[in-house]
Amino acid sequence: MSNNETPIRFGIIGCAEIARKISRAINLSPNSTLYALASRSIEKAHNFAIQNNLFSDSLKIYGNYSEILDDPFVDAVYMPLPTTFHLHWAILAAEKKKHLLLEKPTALNVEELDKILDVCDKNGVQFMDASMWYHHPRTVKMKEMILDSKLFGQVKAIHSSSSYAPGLEFLENNIRVKPDLDALGALGDAGWYCIGAILWAMNQTLPTTVTALPNVARNSAGVILTCSASLYWEKEETVATFYCSFIAHETMDLRVYGSNGTCYLYDFILPFGEDSASFNFTSGAKFVDLHIGWNVKPQVVEVTSQLPQEGYMIQEFASLVKAIKFSRSKPESKWPHTSRITQLVLDAVNKSIDTGFQPVHM
Amino acid sequence: MSNNETPIRFGIIGCAEIARKISRAINLSPNSTLYALASRSIEKAHNFAIQNNLFSDSLKIYGNYSEILDDPFVDAVYMPLPTTFHLHWAILAAEKKKHLLLEKPTALNVEELDKILDVCDKNGVQFMDASMWYHHPRTVKMKEMILDSKLFGQVKAIHSSSSYAPGLEFLENNIRVKPDLDALGALGDAGWYCIGAILWAMNQTLPTTVTALPNVARNSAGVILTCSASLYWEKEETVATFYCSFIAHETMDLRVYGSNGTCYLYDFILPFGEDSASFNFTSGAKFVDLHIGWNVKPQVVEVTSQLPQEGYMIQEFASLVKAIKFSRSKPESKWPHTSRITQLVLDAVNKSIDTGFQPVHM
Repeated sequence: MSNNETPIRFGIIGCAEIARKISRAINLSPNSTLYALASRSIEKAHNFAIQNNLFSDSLKIYGNYSEILDDPFVDAVYMPLPTTFHLHWAILAAEKKKHLLLEKPTALNVEELDKILDVCDKNGVQFMDASMWYHHPRTVKMKEMILDSKLFGQVKAIHSSSSYAPGLEFLENNIRVKPDLDALGALGDAGWYCIGAILWAMNQTLPTTVTALPNVARNSAGVILTCSASLYWEKEETVATFYCSFIAHETMDLRVYGSNGTCYLYDFILPFGEDSASFNFTSGAKFVDLHIGWNVKPQVVEVTSQLPQEGYMIQEFASLVKAIKFSRSKPESKWPHTSRITQLVLDAVNKSIDTGFQPVHM
Repeated sequence: MSNNETPIRFGIIGCAEIARKISRAINLSPNSTLYALASRSIEKAHNFAIQNNLFSDSLKIYGNYSEILDDPFVDAVYMPLPTTFHLHWAILAAEKKKHLLLEKPTALNVEELDKILDVCDKNGVQFMDASMWYHHPRTVKMKEMILDSKLFGQVKAIHSSSSYAPGLEFLENNIRVKPDLDALGALGDAGWYCIGAILWAMNQTLPTTVTALPNVARNSAGVILTCSASLYWEKEETVATFYCSFIAHETMDLRVYGSNGTCYLYDFILPFGEDSASFNFTSGAKFVDLHIGWNVKPQVVEVTSQLPQEGYMIQEFASLVKAIKFSRSKPESKWPHTSRITQLVLDAVNKSIDTGFQPVHM
């Protein structure tokens, strides 16, 4: 096989529920293959492979995380471990020269993430967090239209939400709300997307200030179940707000308000369906005479896709890994930067909450 | 004519642009008639009548505001004057026993509004502010669905926006941004609707705190062109945010997040068209297996209407006036209450801005 035809060999570290979706995406993506699976027990990894129709003679199954990292045929790892374990295992993976697709939130705080990014940098491995929606062609199309100054103008305000209501049992016992596993709770799991979407709309520039809003709910262990924040860019005079929650109906809103247009959608994290996705765009709206209606209605922009968005993510990641592996390219810095400023803002929201909703200057 | 067939006779005080729309609504509404018009000059009133096809032998034309209030045949007045003049003319109208449909913002502050409401109360006249959207059947239908605890659950978060971009000339010279005419600027003109919508979703209960966000823009005279705020209800743990602006593309968003459902629309202040209007409602949304899509898409709820929403407003106001006039009913307290808490929150946003974005306790 030529280099162009050699697929990137993925190892999955941790057989979490989300790994089902990503293993499927690895096999759907044209430039990658699922090569190995690791869980804390060989039985668990084995069962995961069987239950998800992944089992084959060529699939390597490991009963611990160290051995998969020692396998020289693993090019890249996807790591859906609880956040607490990211620091240890992500650093070990990078030291073993494994390119790293890390689940979000990337770390418990930016200090931890910086350690991970530093080791990735020193070892020349690609880092990317597993936020899938950035990679959907719909996201690309939205960005194109938002950047059109005639259609959209400057970004003036942004609102985002990410919420779902998994129920009472989850709120006390799920990994995502355990202080020793995913201490960032709904802010880390759901708020990560809102912060990412807001920064995406602002071309990955940090806000001047971040201020949490007072609607913080926590479970009995003190882990955040709901919170909100406002972000402010002084130079641009732009404001953004978000709401994230484990105790509200499922929402995935992104609404970007421009000087000449508006762009919005309700399923930005996960499209309603896989075959196509849409967003709404309005430009040049005015009242008609007598102010009894509008001159335009929102335009629905449909974007078809060949892969699910996680497939596009794997394809993008694998192509960066290929370029490093076969063409001596350097890792793409856009992705660690995107993760890092998301984590920085997330930390600022936490700090603002801890200081009684004071603004945190970035 | 029987009392039931006697239409309420409206006088319009001030031939503002918006009066074109309301004069049309008065004539469309089955229980009202346009009886008189007043402007600061008889020519202006005359021209307004001709330009809007209102002129007839029975229409009274006044060249000042006092005379129309002295006309014993005027039952009710619609008053679209600049906010600065509300205190004087609204009080005078109520003292002359004219029922009062007052343009928003109702007053420069709640102290002024309380003086107006007090005189209305003492004189037994109906007070209502001219926020039209409350009266659209779509609004009634949304409320019905939001109050359905199975469909929607508790209100957890709300987001609203009201913006339009009338251009540079407006930003310095329009009545709405003149400190001596409409000193509340975009907060009074556009933010009024956002605050009203948020309070509507919260069943007209005051928030615990109101905090302005830092994105305040002003014109050279110091009048607000853009601002935002967050509202928080401590008992309900509910948060609301809004954005209002004269320098962003036209938007009229209301998004209500519940524990079991979501209700939203983009033209809440003024429907896209007159014949029918819609909103989106989602309930019981979940991820499908593998988290590759949603089980439900938003439902579009269409609501047809016989009148434009301002027609429904006039009809409702006139029917309350009729009940007072012919059946000795008392004025409906819901409408002054709605205006008053909107004004209270508006004042709190202003106070928060003036104190460097500190929370204002209500």
